[in-house]
Amino acid sequence: MTHHANARPLGGGIIGLGLAGGIMAPIIAEHPGLTLAGAAETDASTRATFTADTGLPAYAEVCELLANPTVDFVYVATPHQCHRAHAVLAAEHGKHIIVEKPMALSLADCDAMIDAANANGVQLVIGHTHSFDPAIAAIRALIDSGRTGAPVSLAMWNFTDFLYRPRRPEELDSARGGGILYNQLPHQLDVARLIVNSPIRSVRAATTRLDPTRPTEGGCSAFVDFENGACATVVYSGYDRFDSDELHGWIAEGGQLKTARHGHARRMLSKIAGPEGEAAQRRVQFGYGAAGAHGNPPHQPHFGLMLVSCERADIRQSADGLYIYDDAGADEQPIIRSSWRPGRGDVLEELRRAVVDGVPPLHDGTFGRGTVEAAIAIAQSAAARREITITELAAA
Amino acid sequence: MTHHANARPLGGGIIGLGLAGGIMAPIIAEHPGLTLAGAAETDASTRATFTADTGLPAYAEVCELLANPTVDFVYVATPHQCHRAHAVLAAEHGKHIIVEKPMALSLADCDAMIDAANANGVQLVIGHTHSFDPAIAAIRALIDSGRTGAPVSLAMWNFTDFLYRPRRPEELDSARGGGILYNQLPHQLDVARLIVNSPIRSVRAATTRLDPTRPTEGGCSAFVDFENGACATVVYSGYDRFDSDELHGWIAEGGQLKTARHGHARRMLSKIAGPEGEAAQRRVQFGYGAAGAHGNPPHQPHFGLMLVSCERADIRQSADGLYIYDDAGADEQPIIRSSWRPGRGDVLEELRRAVVDGVPPLHDGTFGRGTVEAAIAIAQSAAARREITITELAAA
Repeated sequence: MTHHANARPLGGGIIGLGLAGGIMAPIIAEHPGLTLAGAAETDASTRATFTADTGLPAYAEVCELLANPTVDFVYVATPHQCHRAHAVLAAEHGKHIIVEKPMALSLADCDAMIDAANANGVQLVIGHTHSFDPAIAAIRALIDSGRTGAPVSLAMWNFTDFLYRPRRPEELDSARGGGILYNQLPHQLDVARLIVNSPIRSVRAATTRLDPTRPTEGGCSAFVDFENGACATVVYSGYDRFDSDELHGWIAEGGQLKTARHGHARRMLSKIAGPEGEAAQRRVQFGYGAAGAHGNPPHQPHFGLMLVSCERADIRQSADGLYIYDDAGADEQPIIRSSWRPGRGDVLEELRRAVVDGVPPLHDGTFGRGTVEAAIAIAQSAAARREITITELAAA
Repeated sequence: MTHHANARPLGGGIIGLGLAGGIMAPIIAEHPGLTLAGAAETDASTRATFTADTGLPAYAEVCELLANPTVDFVYVATPHQCHRAHAVLAAEHGKHIIVEKPMALSLADCDAMIDAANANGVQLVIGHTHSFDPAIAAIRALIDSGRTGAPVSLAMWNFTDFLYRPRRPEELDSARGGGILYNQLPHQLDVARLIVNSPIRSVRAATTRLDPTRPTEGGCSAFVDFENGACATVVYSGYDRFDSDELHGWIAEGGQLKTARHGHARRMLSKIAGPEGEAAQRRVQFGYGAAGAHGNPPHQPHFGLMLVSCERADIRQSADGLYIYDDAGADEQPIIRSSWRPGRGDVLEELRRAVVDGVPPLHDGTFGRGTVEAAIAIAQSAAARREITITELAAA
């Protein structure tokens, strides 16, 4: 299905007005080539708020949203285990699809989603991850320009408060895709894969579960070997102790200045009683319409510290651009702002360009599947305490 | 051989007045419990300078230094391939020994040195590495206090200009122990081993050789698994591009403020013609009596960025102490200064305490051997592109 460039803006429907869907709704509305068309959401109160805010329909059933002819694409932001069902259903209704990361929790689910998109001739984009950030596109463009030579090793650190943000119970249950492996590592894996531009060959990883009251993976250290010979060391901690934004001018992940620092999330959480209170607080703090979810950030979004070592230069993200360290010394290159929100707006733009301009998306289903594969390999490597190759994973 | 506490200060002889020996000579002289006794050096001009400066004998032959009864211990700072011969000779003369890192280039050489020290009843300490830094002792003490719980993962980055400092030809030849694997990684490996306090079980690593005019390993990314289940990701680059001291307040490795920044070493080197010019420049810049080698630094020495994630806290080195990030937030703990030079002075103090007070050294021959073993495993892992366990290394 293609879309004519001078047709009406593409209409987008949100499936699931939780954290990701709630953030994305206004960004669709703001995007110059798109329009917000409606939403599907199981919670009646959230539906009412959405309709009061936007004047748009909010349906209890996904099928109702998919039957709406003003919906050209959907943003699937339901719990991970629903991604496959909702993406396949959308494809069968001829809707283009963005699926929030992780694409799914199994390779079989990924395959079903890819097959459904292909069979129905719709575009499939997996996001948002920080690999959509303008800084990552700028790094990739810099490498493609030939100035730096090919990337040879990436070093990535991100230390956050992830595990102490208010959670639903399944988000703390590894068996249901909770913890950092499926929710935070995909950012780093996508970024590394997009920059290195080669399939992952093997991983060697260790994970940590340090808090029995949050019994899922909260930390990971991984060595990632790419087929082209490049490698990445990937370190993540969500334990709200050291915060790597301390070394990035206290600019938060989204590009805002961070005022709530070390230990803040844990202190806030300690005031909430029980899983139900936590889920309620999660809705207040991160649900649709939550304060702080809107507004263009003063700086570029990022996902921790990263050094990209290439044959002839090192590259590192700055607050508003890139530092390039080469034989001439250090240099800073600004990032030119687009008219859409950096990061999440770029997810939308990647889909819009695919649908309207026929530009194949970088983050298609096959790309998204590769990141799920790597996350599974990391979990297996940590459990088996040995290197896991992607070929043995596929053969299992 | 033991030494009585109220005897004269221990006399130290330097074997090899190059970079390491030249730095160490005045630090021995300054140490309150030691006295500088003489040196052995093949270069006549350096011998003359040493004697003019210190009034002490400088011998052309190591045996002459070892025959001097005022020499109680020697600091072996000759080229790597001579470490075994000089350490064994010193032991046979009943002298205590400090061997500059790397201990040796083979496990057989390490074993011969350990055996000679044991057979002759002398102390053997392997250093200097940055694991002697007061900050590392403070981290270890903090962990031992029980406040943080056990270390679970270490993340280490060091980006320096190592490969572009003026070099002798063998320092750029991996077969003769050149490059970073035997000269820079031992700092990180020693630090990690001392903090984790468990043998290394396996490594998975990649190395880079990016400059054909400096044809040895200049970069490394490694995942290190320890027997107790902790792990470390170790990243090093000596390519004079990004400089990780940028994220440590521009404090240099030795604790001085750094004014020569990105690309400086490469620019200076480009003005020198050929290997002979480079070796001569090396002597001027880093040899015995070179400017900048002396003086107590304003801040603590360090070796790049390191996050020590423990069960209940993260720890990171600050300019003058440690940052401790735990459930209460972030806290900075100062490091109390000793009366000797931090780092290299601590090497001397470890030997002095072993000889005079009978305190077994942390950095004994067995410890030094473990780091050589790990460096060999890293080289093999990079070459074979797979995880290498220490047991298979020992079996080979």
